[in-house]
Amino acid sequence: MKRYEDLSPSLRCIMTPGPVEVDPRVLRAMSFPVLGQFDPEFTGIMNETMEMLRELFVTDNQWAFPVDGTSRSGIEAAMVSLIAPGDRVLIPIFGRFGHLLHEIAERCGAEVLTLEKEWGCVFDPEEVIAAMKSFKPDIVAIVHGETSTGRVQPLAGIGRACREQDALLIVDAVATIGGVPVETDAWLLDAVIGGTQKCLSIPSGMAPVTYNARAEAKLLKRKRVERGLRTGEVQVEALDFVRSNYFDLGMLQDYWSPQRLNHHTEMTSMLYALREGLRLVLEEGLEARHARHALHEEALVAGLTAMGLKLYGDPQSKLTVVTCVLIPEGVDGEAVRTMLLERFGIEIASSFGPLKGRIWRIGTMGFSCRENNVLRLLGALEGALLRHGHAVPAGLGVQAALDVYDAKVR
Amino acid sequence: MKRYEDLSPSLRCIMTPGPVEVDPRVLRAMSFPVLGQFDPEFTGIMNETMEMLRELFVTDNQWAFPVDGTSRSGIEAAMVSLIAPGDRVLIPIFGRFGHLLHEIAERCGAEVLTLEKEWGCVFDPEEVIAAMKSFKPDIVAIVHGETSTGRVQPLAGIGRACREQDALLIVDAVATIGGVPVETDAWLLDAVIGGTQKCLSIPSGMAPVTYNARAEAKLLKRKRVERGLRTGEVQVEALDFVRSNYFDLGMLQDYWSPQRLNHHTEMTSMLYALREGLRLVLEEGLEARHARHALHEEALVAGLTAMGLKLYGDPQSKLTVVTCVLIPEGVDGEAVRTMLLERFGIEIASSFGPLKGRIWRIGTMGFSCRENNVLRLLGALEGALLRHGHAVPAGLGVQAALDVYDAKVR
Repeated sequence: MKRYEDLSPSLRCIMTPGPVEVDPRVLRAMSFPVLGQFDPEFTGIMNETMEMLRELFVTDNQWAFPVDGTSRSGIEAAMVSLIAPGDRVLIPIFGRFGHLLHEIAERCGAEVLTLEKEWGCVFDPEEVIAAMKSFKPDIVAIVHGETSTGRVQPLAGIGRACREQDALLIVDAVATIGGVPVETDAWLLDAVIGGTQKCLSIPSGMAPVTYNARAEAKLLKRKRVERGLRTGEVQVEALDFVRSNYFDLGMLQDYWSPQRLNHHTEMTSMLYALREGLRLVLEEGLEARHARHALHEEALVAGLTAMGLKLYGDPQSKLTVVTCVLIPEGVDGEAVRTMLLERFGIEIASSFGPLKGRIWRIGTMGFSCRENNVLRLLGALEGALLRHGHAVPAGLGVQAALDVYDAKVR
Repeated sequence: MKRYEDLSPSLRCIMTPGPVEVDPRVLRAMSFPVLGQFDPEFTGIMNETMEMLRELFVTDNQWAFPVDGTSRSGIEAAMVSLIAPGDRVLIPIFGRFGHLLHEIAERCGAEVLTLEKEWGCVFDPEEVIAAMKSFKPDIVAIVHGETSTGRVQPLAGIGRACREQDALLIVDAVATIGGVPVETDAWLLDAVIGGTQKCLSIPSGMAPVTYNARAEAKLLKRKRVERGLRTGEVQVEALDFVRSNYFDLGMLQDYWSPQRLNHHTEMTSMLYALREGLRLVLEEGLEARHARHALHEEALVAGLTAMGLKLYGDPQSKLTVVTCVLIPEGVDGEAVRTMLLERFGIEIASSFGPLKGRIWRIGTMGFSCRENNVLRLLGALEGALLRHGHAVPAGLGVQAALDVYDAKVR
């Protein structure tokens, strides 16, 4: 029999739009021995996590809990629970993850209208509102922070229009939660999905969601109680019941409620990680955390600019936590990325579809978003570019970033 | 702002049918810093995990990888990918988790025929085969180890019949994998789903699946390539495409193949845990591991019997890793369970539906399945029963278990 070697992953400096580095305290939390899923200590941790998630999403919603899966599990749970077959769904698309929303909505059997924006820009909310007036959607689904293009979409105006037209607004805040403001209640968002492995700096594996009473009313109409758990009463069954058991939010909320109706076996160690990661976020404070992300973006952009590199996309809609850099003419972007990883131990990202080979994407997210990482990356990128025969002014990138840091009252 | 306290879960002796205790080496694996999802070191770990899963499932199948979610995510992925709306699905049910298969098949839009067996027994394969002959199913879906009743269903005859009738056989081996033999190829199983938090003793959060070329042929017919990832070629789209993006096994296998077509962000730390847990399983060896589970079951049963307790269900079909005990007349089962947890730090389980309040379920799974745990439980159960006014012969339970252990060549 083959003997497998000890697990021994290298230490990386991860400057991608996720997954990013994880605070050692979060890593440590996963190494605690597990509790049973109905152990009162464990359900206590579940309740506490819900409370923390409400703070994170800046909401008074009753429901805020993780879906047990990677980020897109949360998106699919919200969509499959809220979109009945035949529902009219409006999806404004300004990058790859808008296409994912379209994809999932189609799989839900929706009648979809998409609006497409040139990549690198976002929508003026009025454009979305105009389309809503003619299409009269039941649901609007939109990405908040689009990592494929590094853009952030303003949402407040769209939230108000959805309320006025009685549509539900589903927001993919996977890339933004914990890095830039996401104001669930103030912006009138009906369902919001966050990601763990980006600005929260928790390993991939859970998808925090929150939704309000308007969303709940719709999904409860489509809920089923699972066979094998039904009690004596007659089961009144909706004809358009949710087509997934795993993602039926009505059942998930029963599991997360004091009723604790059995569904899946909650991911114990991932929940420990989520709870510890949220604790660190709330200890830092949302405002301070957003300011920190803005500071390191500023230093990174100053450094890149001083090196003569150009940013991609409309500056007005730049997403703080992802900086897209045009690969200079004549430079093999993948060769530079490989050198950064193999020789400097630093990971940055390429992009998708039309942007593949055209831009690099640099993340400044969560625990990865810190001064020594930004300085390390700028120095390494200079070294790799010079090594690839691209003339950059040596030393200027790091100095420009240091200038930004030094100018702040520390 | 509220300050949240440090995470500090109590140490428990977990003798339920899952989640069970986790080997400290697996817990430690989750505390390693993360790698990026396309880092060659990480994709190397993914490939190695697939190799280990083939050994675990005793299969030459090309495809063996985890679905990122709890156990039922793997079940839903297999079912939603393999069951097209209108497909005829036969589901023999002998406990709660058979009802779950029924539930999921209905949500997939299947035409379902169920066979029901009195709880506490399993099917003679001939009964299933007879039903197949008249119903002519496209799919047969069945539970291997039913934790709700503590039974194990023989599968080999059913596998052969499915092959003869050109039906696909989907097997829920969540409770059995790593504890009792699961012979994917020898028994002609087309798709098998394992669980992590039971006999593999890895925290809940991943669902290893394997499927053969027959299953693959069907699911590839129903696959879509995700919008936003499609290349120039014309997309030939099946009309009965898989109704889930997250659970489309055709897309998952592209992500797990050398093609690495982006889908979700693999759960880094959970994959570390899975890889380490599988390493320990294979190091112990499947045969030795099954023998260990049988030994501790024997000691546990000897102890319970010596205390005058009666087992539930047909002894012929008893599942090695779950022992169901009839709660003695006049004893409040929940009060005893609570005392075991609160005073002795030991968790055992109750059951579902018709068995609620009638039986306790004791798991001897994975890392929890060891001599000191069995002895500790027997002593504690004696103490709790005496404290609840139920006369048990003091001391005999532990002595009977020790006799079993001492009789073995150690």
